[in-house]
Amino acid sequence: MPVVPDLARRLAAEALGTAILVATVVGSGIMADRLTNDVALSLLGNTIPTGAILVVLITILGPVSGAHFNPAVTMVFALRRDIEPIAALFYIAMQILGGIVGSFMAHAMFELPIIEVSRTVRTGSGQWIAEVVAAFGLIFTILAGLRFRPDAIGWLVGLYITAAYWFTASTSFANPAVAIARSLSDTFAGIRPLDLPGFIIAELVGALLAMAIANWMLATEPLSQSKGQ
Amino acid sequence: MPVVPDLARRLAAEALGTAILVATVVGSGIMADRLTNDVALSLLGNTIPTGAILVVLITILGPVSGAHFNPAVTMVFALRRDIEPIAALFYIAMQILGGIVGSFMAHAMFELPIIEVSRTVRTGSGQWIAEVVAAFGLIFTILAGLRFRPDAIGWLVGLYITAAYWFTASTSFANPAVAIARSLSDTFAGIRPLDLPGFIIAELVGALLAMAIANWMLATEPLSQSKGQ
Amino acid sequence: MPVVPDLARRLAAEALGTAILVATVVGSGIMADRLTNDVALSLLGNTIPTGAILVVLITILGPVSGAHFNPAVTMVFALRRDIEPIAALFYIAMQILGGIVGSFMAHAMFELPIIEVSRTVRTGSGQWIAEVVAAFGLIFTILAGLRFRPDAIGWLVGLYITAAYWFTASTSFANPAVAIARSLSDTFAGIRPLDLPGFIIAELVGALLAMAIANWMLATEPLSQSKGQ
Amino acid sequence: MPVVPDLARRLAAEALGTAILVATVVGSGIMADRLTNDVALSLLGNTIPTGAILVVLITILGPVSGAHFNPAVTMVFALRRDIEPIAALFYIAMQILGGIVGSFMAHAMFELPIIEVSRTVRTGSGQWIAEVVAAFGLIFTILAGLRFRPDAIGWLVGLYITAAYWFTASTSFANPAVAIARSLSDTFAGIRPLDLPGFIIAELVGALLAMAIANWMLATEPLSQSKGQ
Repeated sequence: MPVVPDLARRLAAEALGTAILVATVVGSGIMADRLTNDVALSLLGNTIPTGAILVVLITILGPVSGAHFNPAVTMVFALRRDIEPIAALFYIAMQILGGIVGSFMAHAMFELPIIEVSRTVRTGSGQWIAEVVAAFGLIFTILAGLRFRPDAIGWLVGLYITAAYWFTASTSFANPAVAIARSLSDTFAGIRPLDLPGFIIAELVGALLAMAIANWMLATEPLSQSKGQ
Repeated sequence: MPVVPDLARRLAAEALGTAILVATVVGSGIMADRLTNDVALSLLGNTIPTGAILVVLITILGPVSGAHFNPAVTMVFALRRDIEPIAALFYIAMQILGGIVGSFMAHAMFELPIIEVSRTVRTGSGQWIAEVVAAFGLIFTILAGLRFRPDAIGWLVGLYITAAYWFTASTSFANPAVAIARSLSDTFAGIRPLDLPGFIIAELVGALLAMAIANWMLATEPLSQSKGQ
Repeated sequence: MPVVPDLARRLAAEALGTAILVATVVGSGIMADRLTNDVALSLLGNTIPTGAILVVLITILGPVSGAHFNPAVTMVFALRRDIEPIAALFYIAMQILGGIVGSFMAHAMFELPIIEVSRTVRTGSGQWIAEVVAAFGLIFTILAGLRFRPDAIGWLVGLYITAAYWFTASTSFANPAVAIARSLSDTFAGIRPLDLPGFIIAELVGALLAMAIANWMLATEPLSQSKGQ
Repeated sequence: MPVVPDLARRLAAEALGTAILVATVVGSGIMADRLTNDVALSLLGNTIPTGAILVVLITILGPVSGAHFNPAVTMVFALRRDIEPIAALFYIAMQILGGIVGSFMAHAMFELPIIEVSRTVRTGSGQWIAEVVAAFGLIFTILAGLRFRPDAIGWLVGLYITAAYWFTASTSFANPAVAIARSLSDTFAGIRPLDLPGFIIAELVGALLAMAIANWMLATEPLSQSKGQ
């Protein structure tokens, strides 16, 4: 049985990973938005880096902290008793802190004011349904991935988010810590602070729903893959 | 030998997977179409999410249900006696049902009328040949993938569809359940209900052709990969 | 030691694979060209499908025929005595035949005249240098890939061609059979028949150069990957 | 224990790999810039080939030389005593030489003057912070990748650079040898020679920072991936 790394390393990994994730989401949004007037191209220039960095960060930091980078993920693991409650609270604090630092890093690189407040309106039933769907899919992907293909979990999450940026009307925030950090950037990836509660509640609802369905659906021996049935 | 999961879980996995697949196809089409006037960019914004979600869904639900999500696939496995006929009928029913729900989900997220009827004309010999080719390639990829690299089957199908969206004139529906669901969306990914029979027949023809050729071509010991010959 | 599949299956696999490869190159070029006026976007819509289908075709047909799909590849393997000379000649014939059928298939799907003759001029020293480089890189990738990571050869070739479409001035034909087939399509991917000899000679030169350098550089025990040196 | 390949082969692999890497960065920039007026699309046409060729080059040349292709990487391995100091100096010389040849190759293919001097201004605090971040992320990815998933190191680096092209304001040079080579190309990927020192210092700072943090954070047993915590 592997030794659990000491908590300081795990918390540092959560902060570092969430910072790089947010710097990627916000920074690539700024870059894309500056280079083109076509919004679909901006979203593509936002999607590809985000998907790519998720594969990297989860693969290289997963062995240190589990690579949650997301309070909704940590909440689910705490409810499953895969992480102790105190550690979970520290994880969530470091994710929020790291995410905010990531937003600052992006602004520093692109020579914008370090602290901004987003004015991008993201609200309404369509957006909330989208965030429920986005978080449901993310958490289900993680739980099923860990169940059947833990070696591929970085790829699965990166590809899921690549898809979800486009198929959900909200462009799939699916992460309360990242949502908070994005509220502090008045750029392509921003969200008005006023709209945070709706997003965060929707994300937690989607996460709990995924946990409940996964709990039932995955409680089974895997089929033989070679039979295709 | 693994235990076959009970049928309820398998059917739920088929419905869930097909719903997310259709939500991705329809939803990313709506998103892309809203953000740009360049149709090639819209197709790219439709292709990348569809390819990505297929890798994810097949990898995480394959161990539960086999991850068919497609009546043409289920038909082929039934003919090969890899799935019992009754189960196959239930699979197909759940794929159609799940696909329709996926179309509704996309509409709910993008605040469109939940039920629409597509007016997009997709007919003629070029389109039908394209669907024969598209389904042939898909089924051949699945059968050869399961034969030689079952661990990579999610990647193979996702990449095949990524290519087929562009090289077939029909943008590769290749799936009767998804085609039915897309007929209920008057958006980028739609197809007029009147044009469904031509597509579905072409898809089944392509699938049977692939099964026949694969049956002969793959009945052999694999070459040593290290020799490259 | 694996049994070598009988020659008929191997030849059928070479023809089928080259046909699908050319149908993808030509078909995705037609699709992209019809949907946009931006040539970079057309090239992207040509690149992504080509890279993706190469991963698929090499992975699923490699165990049957070695998945050459390319006379330059077959020539190199014949010189290395990895394939018998008579079989090599049959391979090349089937690649050319399959490629031409692939071009016809693309035209049928897009409702163009089945047989065309390309008028796209591709000549001059820059283009020839580009084809030497393109074929050098392809053959070196294949030989080094088979030496160190034969399980990943499909990915390596697909990713190499994805890059080479953009970094070589010729968009990297790198394949005499595919070049011949493309001369029979007056579309985005076409090449004037008059320009074929220059391309084919350059491709064979690049292939032989790669074989010579790989022969020396790879004749060594692999470093331990974990040391990064 | 594997035999270390003789130094001549290792140096040749470093030169060849860096040459192809630079030919890809510069060549794809020229191609993209010629085909479109949309700068975001040019950057995408620069990003995808660069990410793809990195996966290929690191996978196929890693077993020969370690596939550094980057003086900042070689410096870190020398400080960690993973490579002897004399060999490290030769590595760096060959990377610079190979990179310059790669730039010449790109110009020859695209029929530009073989030697140019870039006039693209890349300076200022935002650019320098960006290069610190870019090199930090690259070196951290390499060290953590070698620690936990050495088989995937090509993918990790290719995906990291794919993201960093967009999330760093400098488009992530992160490599002194490549920066020098790019200063000799007055094209999309160029950098004014005057701006090289700022970039190179920032890259070395980022590399040393990554080494220090990785040294502490990764000195731990990996968590069990299946627990997700």
